[in-house]
Amino acid sequence: MTDTTVIAVVGGTGKLGAAIARRLAKAGRKVIIGSRSAENAENTAAELGFGLTGKINADAASAGDIVIVTVPFAAQDATLAEIKPHVQGKIVVDTTVPLIPPKVMRVQLPAEGSAAVKAQHALGEGVTVVSAFHNVAAHKLIIDQDIGCDVLVFGDDKTTRAKVVELANAAGLRGIHGGALVNSAAAEAMTSLLIFINKTYQVDGAGIKITGNLVQPADSKLA
Amino acid sequence: MTDTTVIAVVGGTGKLGAAIARRLAKAGRKVIIGSRSAENAENTAAELGFGLTGKINADAASAGDIVIVTVPFAAQDATLAEIKPHVQGKIVVDTTVPLIPPKVMRVQLPAEGSAAVKAQHALGEGVTVVSAFHNVAAHKLIIDQDIGCDVLVFGDDKTTRAKVVELANAAGLRGIHGGALVNSAAAEAMTSLLIFINKTYQVDGAGIKITGNLVQPADSKLA
Repeated sequence: MTDTTVIAVVGGTGKLGAAIARRLAKAGRKVIIGSRSAENAENTAAELGFGLTGKINADAASAGDIVIVTVPFAAQDATLAEIKPHVQGKIVVDTTVPLIPPKVMRVQLPAEGSAAVKAQHALGEGVTVVSAFHNVAAHKLIIDQDIGCDVLVFGDDKTTRAKVVELANAAGLRGIHGGALVNSAAAEAMTSLLIFINKTYQVDGAGIKITGNLVQPADSKLA
Repeated sequence: MTDTTVIAVVGGTGKLGAAIARRLAKAGRKVIIGSRSAENAENTAAELGFGLTGKINADAASAGDIVIVTVPFAAQDATLAEIKPHVQGKIVVDTTVPLIPPKVMRVQLPAEGSAAVKAQHALGEGVTVVSAFHNVAAHKLIIDQDIGCDVLVFGDDKTTRAKVVELANAAGLRGIHGGALVNSAAAEAMTSLLIFINKTYQVDGAGIKITGNLVQPADSKLA
């Protein structure tokens, strides 16, 4: 059975977005790269191959069934406002990590508790926000290597969350249910730690792995 | 060279405290177990062996050079107030995770951002607070098995932080510098996730491991 879900990656010309788009397209999914510039989106799509196409962010969001947002924290508000009219009734996967330069090695969670909860507030109740992909090193994700990092997935609706866990798996990663959207704070904060660890221990992209013998849940909503 | 540092474990009759005390005492460190009841402290010390002794919390804190606090979040305020006069000028290792029953699978960070920062405020500037041991499963730590979980260590003074990294290593674990005390939020929040993952994936004590090739820093303050 072919998966006909259209995935839009808003901010998809950035490092993380391009890496996610490439992995999903390579896995046979229909993926559209969004950018502020249609030309940049088209160029990145052509460079990455695998049938990727490019559009400006609003058009990509409009065409997508699942819209993955991969922009820097400073651009989150403006980007969400831009796509808001085009994502009502859809799933938005927010990947935003609240890094505030220059102190990116310092946890600085927003007043809402997490960038994910901030996204839910910004997009309104008509949108189901799930958050994921906070800890993966984009420069490792863009090539076909084992990145040594789990993808923790957060969302209040477990059926929707399961779809994003499946997307992470399709991208060759291990998606893990992390619970409610508020729990996104843990993964978002972890990224500042990983940047600190990269610097302190000279690591080329530290990641995190959940240890223990994880048994896939029998619940079809979670499996 | 024998390490003459006295380590007090306040709340050391609890599961986490007893497990840490036992591992450090087994490693040859001088460790005192503190409890609200001198009798309970003495009994736990005797049961665990390895030269452990027991005192009431205030006396244990008074005798310790490094004071590890292992109490539930609900008891943190009262415990810190009790030991405050006895820990001025010392290192306090706070292990508190802000779990608020019944929703322990939900991240609920305190207004201060983390239990660790809350501890620093409570104890005042005369005390150097470091936080650690948030993610280890006590029931695995109490026996001599590989618990499959790194110990992230947070603190604003890196020399002091390094002492606690070393303590974690002495306990047979891998201590990792996690940066400033505010970064403790990441590890504290992670515990709610691990509890969620334990339930969702039927894991007996999930943990986290930092991946990547960590090179021990040449800086003697960090090594």
